[in-house]
Amino acid sequence: MTGWVVVAGLGPGDAALVTPEVEAALAEATDVLGYFPYVARVAPRPGLTLSPSDNREELDRASEALRLAAEGRRVVIVSSGDPGVFAMASALFEALEAATAPAPQIRVLPGITAMLAAAARIGAPLGHDFCAINLSDNLKPWELIERRLRLAAQADFAMAFYNPRSKSRPHQFPRVLEILREECEPGRLISFARAVSTPDEAIRTVTLAEATPEMADMRTVVIVGNSATRRVGDWVYTPRSVSA
Amino acid sequence: MTGWVVVAGLGPGDAALVTPEVEAALAEATDVLGYFPYVARVAPRPGLTLSPSDNREELDRASEALRLAAEGRRVVIVSSGDPGVFAMASALFEALEAATAPAPQIRVLPGITAMLAAAARIGAPLGHDFCAINLSDNLKPWELIERRLRLAAQADFAMAFYNPRSKSRPHQFPRVLEILREECEPGRLISFARAVSTPDEAIRTVTLAEATPEMADMRTVVIVGNSATRRVGDWVYTPRSVSA
Repeated sequence: MTGWVVVAGLGPGDAALVTPEVEAALAEATDVLGYFPYVARVAPRPGLTLSPSDNREELDRASEALRLAAEGRRVVIVSSGDPGVFAMASALFEALEAATAPAPQIRVLPGITAMLAAAARIGAPLGHDFCAINLSDNLKPWELIERRLRLAAQADFAMAFYNPRSKSRPHQFPRVLEILREECEPGRLISFARAVSTPDEAIRTVTLAEATPEMADMRTVVIVGNSATRRVGDWVYTPRSVSA
Repeated sequence: MTGWVVVAGLGPGDAALVTPEVEAALAEATDVLGYFPYVARVAPRPGLTLSPSDNREELDRASEALRLAAEGRRVVIVSSGDPGVFAMASALFEALEAATAPAPQIRVLPGITAMLAAAARIGAPLGHDFCAINLSDNLKPWELIERRLRLAAQADFAMAFYNPRSKSRPHQFPRVLEILREECEPGRLISFARAVSTPDEAIRTVTLAEATPEMADMRTVVIVGNSATRRVGDWVYTPRSVSA
């Protein structure tokens, strides 16, 4: 039996946002590995071993997946959203680079990433050029985050922020808002999309002047419009056009 | 009967990448509107009117959808990829802003956007902070594109380019490569992902020094790594970490 590793994106939460491609991989798997709330989204069945693990154990999990595949097992590593956006795909290739054994068959299966699910609920805030920034400084220096924020604002990108806030980093999101206020006008629209597509979903759009750090938590994606982003009724959208 | 408008993302091409949410909306629709190759991906059935139209008719198509919904029809506007990324969602809200009639019920349904499908085939090139830029200057001044490219390179974002090249803009993609060569090192990895998830799929990664304009066409998404993006076997990935 030939083992393999699939890194699959489960989307933001709703089962109706999981692709048939990912469902098919899960149906063939012998093992599912991942952060425990994501593994909890996979239905148990005979012959399937569910191996939830904690956050910040990404590299160990990826190495374990490679090891299991070498034994002939069919392993799905589950990510929320898309596995290639601040999720498990990079960790798997890091583990592969460090491994001494030959690489098993690997496939990455895309999913609906949080910023696109959030944007769809908000309207079309990412309808023009945009960037995605992970605001956690667990794996990069805080100075780099500040520099990227300023350059992104100067480029007039719409911006999506992942991991805007956690208990261990209470001072950082206030600083992000401060930088945005230095670089952007006070009426700039900023949307807070919490737990999109789950029963806890909450969407709120305010101006940058009105934004407070408490509007974001660990389950929130934050989307900042560009200078042309505006409201139409309850929707927020970024026009396709910029005039010369 | 209450009409509605749904803007739905069909993903990059493969039916296995269409979400169940989008399939459910199509099953309830009376009308499907969109650019003709996307409408061609929807199975005909009795009671469903398929209305394909040409490219660059986005606003007319969106206004028509609003008009049909006001008559009680259930309208799905189909986009390839995700409707919120350089696609029909913004056009719909522009049409809504210009409309005098009350807004119908509107929903935006996310899809797998081309850059994430491409990234999954390439490995994990967007595994760290990144930006998405539409290289077409149909709706914005070329100078803004050049400015964004330089700022994105200076921020060390990985970059995904939509619409890199068309027959009507032959000189622009060569200029993009020129700017990237001014801002980035010659060994920077650049991937060309054509027609991902279709029978015509072709993926190729070269260094910036080796890249030529002919490697991109209208059906290509181009992904430029950041300064740390590297190869492991046949894969290309961007590490999660940046050291201080």
